[in-house]
Amino acid sequence: MRKPSAEGVARAAAKIAEILPMTPLLPVEYGKSRFWLKAECLQPVGAFKIRGGWHRLSDLTGEERVRGVVAVSSGNHAQGVAWAAKRLGISATIVMPRDAPAIKVERTKQLGATVVPYDRMTEDREAIGQAIAAEHGSVYVHAFADPWVIEGQGSTGIEITRQLGRQPARIAVCCGGGGLTAGIALACPEAQVIPVEPEGWDDVCRSIEAGEIQCIAPDAPRTACDALQTFATSPLNFDVIRQRCKFGLRVSEHEIREAQRFAFSHLRIVLEPGGAVALAAALSGKLELDEHTVVVATGGNADPEAFARLLVK
Amino acid sequence: MRKPSAEGVARAAAKIAEILPMTPLLPVEYGKSRFWLKAECLQPVGAFKIRGGWHRLSDLTGEERVRGVVAVSSGNHAQGVAWAAKRLGISATIVMPRDAPAIKVERTKQLGATVVPYDRMTEDREAIGQAIAAEHGSVYVHAFADPWVIEGQGSTGIEITRQLGRQPARIAVCCGGGGLTAGIALACPEAQVIPVEPEGWDDVCRSIEAGEIQCIAPDAPRTACDALQTFATSPLNFDVIRQRCKFGLRVSEHEIREAQRFAFSHLRIVLEPGGAVALAAALSGKLELDEHTVVVATGGNADPEAFARLLVK
Repeated sequence: MRKPSAEGVARAAAKIAEILPMTPLLPVEYGKSRFWLKAECLQPVGAFKIRGGWHRLSDLTGEERVRGVVAVSSGNHAQGVAWAAKRLGISATIVMPRDAPAIKVERTKQLGATVVPYDRMTEDREAIGQAIAAEHGSVYVHAFADPWVIEGQGSTGIEITRQLGRQPARIAVCCGGGGLTAGIALACPEAQVIPVEPEGWDDVCRSIEAGEIQCIAPDAPRTACDALQTFATSPLNFDVIRQRCKFGLRVSEHEIREAQRFAFSHLRIVLEPGGAVALAAALSGKLELDEHTVVVATGGNADPEAFARLLVK
Repeated sequence: MRKPSAEGVARAAAKIAEILPMTPLLPVEYGKSRFWLKAECLQPVGAFKIRGGWHRLSDLTGEERVRGVVAVSSGNHAQGVAWAAKRLGISATIVMPRDAPAIKVERTKQLGATVVPYDRMTEDREAIGQAIAAEHGSVYVHAFADPWVIEGQGSTGIEITRQLGRQPARIAVCCGGGGLTAGIALACPEAQVIPVEPEGWDDVCRSIEAGEIQCIAPDAPRTACDALQTFATSPLNFDVIRQRCKFGLRVSEHEIREAQRFAFSHLRIVLEPGGAVALAAALSGKLELDEHTVVVATGGNADPEAFARLLVK
């Protein structure tokens, strides 16, 4: 498979600028600190995943488009692919865990995709997705181990640079499989790129520390971050991450909830748990904060009942 | 008092562009309709009021600045004035109702303002504000009956025109005293400007219908829209509104809650009740919706507990 490149990111950014307005870079004041937040939760599907979906699907050949696409996702990549498929008239089949947030399943169906449920504990989602793709000759669009997806997500970094008028000194990124982290690293070669993960789901942090890809332990703790429950990154992503990320950061479930509450009260945006981990790192003192710091808030598809519980503590 | 003008709006917009990034104009898909939402809830103080506050206070003379400013507000104008005052090193005193949302009072104090509470039922807030201003020789910054405030709020319309590349056909605006409505009408002379009010707090709707200023009835129903509880607009605002607004729209408390839920789930933004009335008009079929329609979402300072109740219904 070809490797993702800075040129590919630039091309993705140009394509995305044609159809999606830039998400705002919001100024954040926190105590005596001031930093920036890139509000990807304000994308039409509520997450940055629309970028990779669009770059991948809009590059398909006419023949590939006819045979449709298949993806595996707990919900945000699902919506990104389904949104792009709908716009391009491509049929999309999305394999989603049975315990995915109802709002994400519903929204994916509303976008016209066929949803195939699987059991997160007993079934191999990749195998299910690959089997469906093989059966129909469809293109399998991996959520992160795909050069187009990485480049598409990287367009976030191009926008940040434009909005700030320069590359920031550091960018903290909510990290699942590492597609956005690798893409932003390609987009912003002068910035320090810092992946942030929930405690216990810190495979990318540990991979950076070990110098080789590490997996999530089978007894990983529960996390509210459904969007970040990936078992390991891929070589395609890690080749970039290893070279560009000196370290990653871990945040607790409590810190994530605090970040969601802060985003509600001070920024008036809705963040799902997995979309709030980079902000959690900022608010909990783990990240250097100044006007050269950007935090990427990646997704806002929050379950309303869980969010209500969060607001009343 | 001088009248607000289109030139004043242009000057306000230029001043505001120097210190505040444009709030996003978000594309909204609703059923088969597509329209735009101007997300003023994403301003640093969570409401458009920062615009009028900045235009007014930054135009004060050195002598006026020394004597400070006084304002009356349930919370958003309070924060707009306090934010501008803090940035300019001016002391601000804000008269706020005792039953204002706690989050608004707290945030106004955090911005360094002195808060003077009053009883909404038994005390005359204007009289209290004017008395404090007279005592200290301070400038009294009215929430809407002030040419600078109207012009400042109007900068919203300049941004919308820039973002859309043209003046929209129609702009629906959450309306309290009519500062934003009049300002946008001055900014966008080719657009139909439609004020939207909560049922029973429809003094501007009735004023347009009667051709002269009408007041709220003493037995007005309860509304969750603390930001829109003004008893009557002023001649300064109504002179513009009468000429430019053919009609206003009314929405129910139920429709407002639905709009807040939609904004949470589909746009991932937080709207307070008063900031959601224009969107409520759009979603309830009272407003023509197309790509030339803009709805202004004016504020997002929602009480977390009330918002939690809304999410679980």
